[in-house]
Amino acid sequence: MTKIAVTEPSRLALVPFVSVANMMRLVHHIGLERVLTDLTAEIEADFRRWPSFDKTPRVASHSDVGVIELMPTSDGETYGFKYVNGHPKNAREGLQTVTAFGLLADVSTGYPVLLSEMTLLTALRTAATSAMAAKHLAPKGAQVMAMIGNGAQSEFQALALKAVCGITEVRLYDIDPAATAKCAANLAKSGLKVTPCTTAQKAIEGAQIITTCTADKQYATILSDNMVGAGVHVNAIGGDCPGKTELAPGILRRADIFVEYPPQTRVEGEIQQMPADHPVTELWQVITGATPGRTGAAQVTLFDGVGFAIEDFSALRYVRAAMQGTGLFEELDMVADPDDPRDLYGMLMRAR
Amino acid sequence: MTKIAVTEPSRLALVPFVSVANMMRLVHHIGLERVLTDLTAEIEADFRRWPSFDKTPRVASHSDVGVIELMPTSDGETYGFKYVNGHPKNAREGLQTVTAFGLLADVSTGYPVLLSEMTLLTALRTAATSAMAAKHLAPKGAQVMAMIGNGAQSEFQALALKAVCGITEVRLYDIDPAATAKCAANLAKSGLKVTPCTTAQKAIEGAQIITTCTADKQYATILSDNMVGAGVHVNAIGGDCPGKTELAPGILRRADIFVEYPPQTRVEGEIQQMPADHPVTELWQVITGATPGRTGAAQVTLFDGVGFAIEDFSALRYVRAAMQGTGLFEELDMVADPDDPRDLYGMLMRAR
Repeated sequence: MTKIAVTEPSRLALVPFVSVANMMRLVHHIGLERVLTDLTAEIEADFRRWPSFDKTPRVASHSDVGVIELMPTSDGETYGFKYVNGHPKNAREGLQTVTAFGLLADVSTGYPVLLSEMTLLTALRTAATSAMAAKHLAPKGAQVMAMIGNGAQSEFQALALKAVCGITEVRLYDIDPAATAKCAANLAKSGLKVTPCTTAQKAIEGAQIITTCTADKQYATILSDNMVGAGVHVNAIGGDCPGKTELAPGILRRADIFVEYPPQTRVEGEIQQMPADHPVTELWQVITGATPGRTGAAQVTLFDGVGFAIEDFSALRYVRAAMQGTGLFEELDMVADPDDPRDLYGMLMRAR
Repeated sequence: MTKIAVTEPSRLALVPFVSVANMMRLVHHIGLERVLTDLTAEIEADFRRWPSFDKTPRVASHSDVGVIELMPTSDGETYGFKYVNGHPKNAREGLQTVTAFGLLADVSTGYPVLLSEMTLLTALRTAATSAMAAKHLAPKGAQVMAMIGNGAQSEFQALALKAVCGITEVRLYDIDPAATAKCAANLAKSGLKVTPCTTAQKAIEGAQIITTCTADKQYATILSDNMVGAGVHVNAIGGDCPGKTELAPGILRRADIFVEYPPQTRVEGEIQQMPADHPVTELWQVITGATPGRTGAAQVTLFDGVGFAIEDFSALRYVRAAMQGTGLFEELDMVADPDDPRDLYGMLMRAR
């Protein structure tokens, strides 16, 4: 670590930074289930004002082994973006499949006001978004969920559905039994009944909510058509880039499909398997009441979640508010701020 | 500043960060003119391999008072992006018109490998890009440049053209005489002959190279048609977003126009005033020799520079290499990196 001493940066030049260590402290300071409940409320509040956001599909840079994406949005007062990668092969190399960081800036000046780790925060907001979708779409009184794919996201999904939707049992399945054992051990003291299963078929027995979150970059069939019974709600969140899906097309034809932002989901979501005009409902319209969500006990509802910039915006704004007074951030000398804004050169020369 | 102590982040979780203070130290460590020469060479090397880059117009979020942009690119091995704002009214509020930071990441893992301030670095690479364009397009033996607009970018432009193109005199004009006085004072010991002028007309007298860099977000006419004589090279770099231009259309009709990336320049550059099929030449093709640049002594050449992601990529890679062994960076705990990549939750819980 090199100490900063050349010049004393002005207050505006300093950008609060929430490191991974401080994000973990902040989550424990507030309480994990409380964070998940709060984030669900924040995301829901922003979905209610959906038309007030600038929206664009994320900007993806694909390679053979993964993708790097930028996800910007703005509500006209605050601008936010997230950097996030997705590299399914990383786990085999001892690395995270998904890492992320994000930034908020003041629209009126363009100056950054928060830099934050978002690997943890993305896991939290993804779980909160699934809980929000299930809250509005799952059958009333749902208590049992199946969690297919027991990787880094799985525990957060289970806890968010417990905290927000009142789930009492989670049934686990992963092609790798070690992942299931890890998830079960992590959730042992969560208050949930945890049932490890040896097949996906067994995991979905009795479940009113099925969440799929697997990571292979391919067209996979994690759920086949016969596995999804009447009345079930599915959160399909693992299919999130071109060429990466989890559900058999028959499920998509039977289900009512709810999405975040259609121009992005049609490229990245489960519905990339369907014709470009396959009917979908925008989730924000269910939340505002403009469109019905679940309309019958036999209906299969599917949240084809790919992750949208507004969810990250909500999460970053939550962190920015929650960290006030905690000291759980550093300040980075990230923005040059000379006394005379036209004299950048003079600032450089005076630092010599 | 909160100290990081909860967990010891692994090496991969730490991202080198070059602060503003360290960027200033690094520039002085190397020497400013040397940095400008080096950057010109780095950018030129990347322009020579232009087809090997992923290219996309920058992603802009416009408001009434400014713009916030993300500028990504990748050469298949390294990914880079810059965050940059442009707020012409900021200077009146004591803030920078342009602030920026950037990031490099490893395409094969998606992990960030460098975070850097780019307010200073953008000023340096913008000047280096102008010098590169002038090196290939200006009349041979050009010694006099006019600098119209004497704001934060002006000194860097003058020094880059001195270091790279052998300019010996800079003639200054700004609508605000205080800006001209600041620029003249800053360049007093630069080795350049510095001539402050009271009109743009006077500034361009005898100049073989004219650089315009003004900041108003409007269709302005900094140079009128009669001011640009035969044989001159113009770097027009202030017109860089929709609705912001500096040159009279007559100049564009008379000049041979060279641009960075046409899909971006047609929206943001001087040529937004012209029909969508107005002929332009891509600068990289002049640099590789595929297309002629200057073909005659009477020809007016115009570099309609708006700034492109590859220039930032080149600059960030330069900083990453130049900082090795200097200690002029910090390390940020920015990427969560649990021992078991599928056990993000376990990492969080062990931090409690």
